Amino acid sequence: MSDILSRLRAIPGLAVVTDTGAMAPHLVDWRKRHYGAALALVFPTDTTSVAAVMQACYETETRVFPQGGNTSVCGGSVPDESGRGIILNLGRMNVIRKLDAEDDSIIVEAGCILQNVQEAAASIERLFPMSLGAEGSCQIGGNIATNAGGTGVLRYGNMRDLVLGLEVVLADGTIWDGLRTLRKNNSGYDLRNLFIGSEGTLGVVTAAALRLFPRPPHFLTAMLAVQGTDAMLALARQLRAAFPGEVSALEIMSHSQMTIVLRHVPGAKLALPDNADWYLLIEISGTTAPEILEERLTTALGHAFGTGTILDAVLASNERQRAELWALRHHVTEGNVKEGMGLTHDIAVPLAQIGPFIAAAQAWLARELPQARPVVVGHLGDGNLHYIAMLSHDDWEKVADKPGLTAHLNHALYDIADDMGGTFSAEHGIGSIHIADMNRYKTTHELNLMRGLKAFLDPKGLLNPGRVLP
Amino acid sequence: MSDILSRLRAIPGLAVVTDTGAMAPHLVDWRKRHYGAALALVFPTDTTSVAAVMQACYETETRVFPQGGNTSVCGGSVPDESGRGIILNLGRMNVIRKLDAEDDSIIVEAGCILQNVQEAAASIERLFPMSLGAEGSCQIGGNIATNAGGTGVLRYGNMRDLVLGLEVVLADGTIWDGLRTLRKNNSGYDLRNLFIGSEGTLGVVTAAALRLFPRPPHFLTAMLAVQGTDAMLALARQLRAAFPGEVSALEIMSHSQMTIVLRHVPGAKLALPDNADWYLLIEISGTTAPEILEERLTTALGHAFGTGTILDAVLASNERQRAELWALRHHVTEGNVKEGMGLTHDIAVPLAQIGPFIAAAQAWLARELPQARPVVVGHLGDGNLHYIAMLSHDDWEKVADKPGLTAHLNHALYDIADDMGGTFSAEHGIGSIHIADMNRYKTTHELNLMRGLKAFLDPKGLLNPGRVLP
Repeated sequence: MSDILSRLRAIPGLAVVTDTGAMAPHLVDWRKRHYGAALALVFPTDTTSVAAVMQACYETETRVFPQGGNTSVCGGSVPDESGRGIILNLGRMNVIRKLDAEDDSIIVEAGCILQNVQEAAASIERLFPMSLGAEGSCQIGGNIATNAGGTGVLRYGNMRDLVLGLEVVLADGTIWDGLRTLRKNNSGYDLRNLFIGSEGTLGVVTAAALRLFPRPPHFLTAMLAVQGTDAMLALARQLRAAFPGEVSALEIMSHSQMTIVLRHVPGAKLALPDNADWYLLIEISGTTAPEILEERLTTALGHAFGTGTILDAVLASNERQRAELWALRHHVTEGNVKEGMGLTHDIAVPLAQIGPFIAAAQAWLARELPQARPVVVGHLGDGNLHYIAMLSHDDWEKVADKPGLTAHLNHALYDIADDMGGTFSAEHGIGSIHIADMNRYKTTHELNLMRGLKAFLDPKGLLNPGRVLP
Repeated sequence: MSDILSRLRAIPGLAVVTDTGAMAPHLVDWRKRHYGAALALVFPTDTTSVAAVMQACYETETRVFPQGGNTSVCGGSVPDESGRGIILNLGRMNVIRKLDAEDDSIIVEAGCILQNVQEAAASIERLFPMSLGAEGSCQIGGNIATNAGGTGVLRYGNMRDLVLGLEVVLADGTIWDGLRTLRKNNSGYDLRNLFIGSEGTLGVVTAAALRLFPRPPHFLTAMLAVQGTDAMLALARQLRAAFPGEVSALEIMSHSQMTIVLRHVPGAKLALPDNADWYLLIEISGTTAPEILEERLTTALGHAFGTGTILDAVLASNERQRAELWALRHHVTEGNVKEGMGLTHDIAVPLAQIGPFIAAAQAWLARELPQARPVVVGHLGDGNLHYIAMLSHDDWEKVADKPGLTAHLNHALYDIADDMGGTFSAEHGIGSIHIADMNRYKTTHELNLMRGLKAFLDPKGLLNPGRVLP
């Protein structure tokens, strides 16, 4: 133990923290559900330091828990309880190494905060389209490690689709330099995608080359208040057909979810009836002039208005109104944390199975856990729903077997998704909370393939142990 | 040897061909540059048969050379010369298993011809955007194995970006079923991308779930005759800025390339001056009405017309004219084969380096190989150029040391690209022809990472040996 600490302290320029009080904020996730312990917390400022840390840990067989913005909702960003590992916090590696308008690319270090990357792109009239609730504090390294999703996936893809190249420090401290900005490069196996989404268990991402896009000159952002699940899904289909390739977001919130946001989030306002079953947030962007987009939207919605499916619709007519509509969506997690104990799920199903999933889940909840309110928020265009069983703090306290109840609920919902060709983890990853689910929903064959990759890249099992693989 | 043949013949429904004459077309590539030999040629019709073939080969330690449409230009689709392996031809696995408009997806078997997949998508008003010269004969399995590129990459990505899920038979005959159509699925390591682009050396793709897109209702296809490389590149930048997110193709052909196509391809017509330095093919697509697109194009081109940069421009005003413009681009390879000996290269560089690459390559060629004409065709928007040193058949015959000359030329051009952060193989893959280049341009560290993956997934080294890895 003293060996690793003295090795770390010998690394030039590396901040090494061992004081328990100073480490405390890094030992617990932001929702205060997962607590860990660590020998030390280190803050490297360059790739060479990360390599030295990794080499020291490899040689002393010390566990390494990489950490970015610590915004994981899966217990993936805090160390385990053993206290035998170190936290490798990338937050001080936050340099934008290159910003290139002609190449439509940006090269950033892992500790760059997502919002700063978005703003850097905007400063050269480009768009970095990754957007999610935690964008003001989550870091690019974590976004890559978890293959983050968010609200722009429908048009621009997951984090995986936005990464052109990576710089990765491997378990033994060697550096893989795959930091190229090429759009096409078919020279050998795709190492890049192996690291993306591996949650720090195969290597530590230190920098990335990311794709930028032209900024669409015009946006149309609208929220619709809709009655009935089938009607809401039919409307979503109509909208996608009416704006082929132009829909950049298609998000839903259930009535229960909207109520929670309005109740808990300061400044949240809804310029729509508050009694609709569903709120559909749609954003269309491109070169078409806003008045033409509005005209086409009005046409597309005409029938639904006639039949009473849509109670009302509101269009953002300026950037402030657009931000207000998005704030309702982005502050969902914050509201839910204040509301009670939300047992959340991050499922995805094929697009045609969203309706059947919602119906089956509601039926199960009404029967087996009637004290829970179903709260649904999701990325409709991606088939990705955050399906939440919300209990009041009082009701949650009364639950005798909390892990048992949670497992029972999870299995029910994941079984439904799995039967439909879906997944129990769409965009948040596995972390520590889904380890048992990996056993339940992945075949032994697939797990063995993953274990083989892990054994090759992390032969001593030191990288983020207890995450991803059972 | 007789052991494997008897095992193969015992597999129900499997066609096993050992007659040399019947095997002959499968033992040579279409450009007649690579010849191989094989014990047998088998045509499975379902995944179970593929698994049985693979298991038999694994147990008898027989090499397996997977084959699709045999359109590789890298010697990747014919067996080696040892005659000790079998050809596993996937061409009879050509069922479209599922076509789903609501899910925007299609599930196809590996032997489906690309054009048939495009047509199936069109039949439900969807677009499968992969498009390349060989689309009438190349197969989806090969497109996936090589991570095919083509003319739609700028807007829709490489094959990698179009694959939602895969079914793969591994070296030992086990089947990995990753055939889901989910847009988001963060449950463990990304096995899918490991197989995509691995050229049949890590497993045999038997089926794939592919993304479909809405069909853009309007297209604007234009070809521009441009003077000067810098002017051509500036124009390309202007056009991308004028149509943000709407450019679905941006292709270039040098004067020498256009001349070859017009000379050799029956029916090829050019409604433009035939003396321009460059021909730029641009396709814009979306919901904007054609008359508005035309107006915007005219505005964007106005300045270039004024300065004499553009000699002339032609717009396709109907589907037939659009097909004619594309035919000039799609028949490039066919024309080049007839013209002479084209020493072709498939490089990519960062977008800002295209001009410097062309200049450096021309200078080298003029100095070192003056009898060769530089012929350039490429996917400008992706930074991917097919840079060809074209020799007449006579001049080629006079070359004493053909492999030596080829290597000298290749190294010169690849060194230029590599120094610019580029690659020696952008979209065609490695096959057998780039093995030495892997050693030259990849670090030992990166090669060792790839070798480790190979050793894990193909421990006996039976899958497409001699391809991809040195």
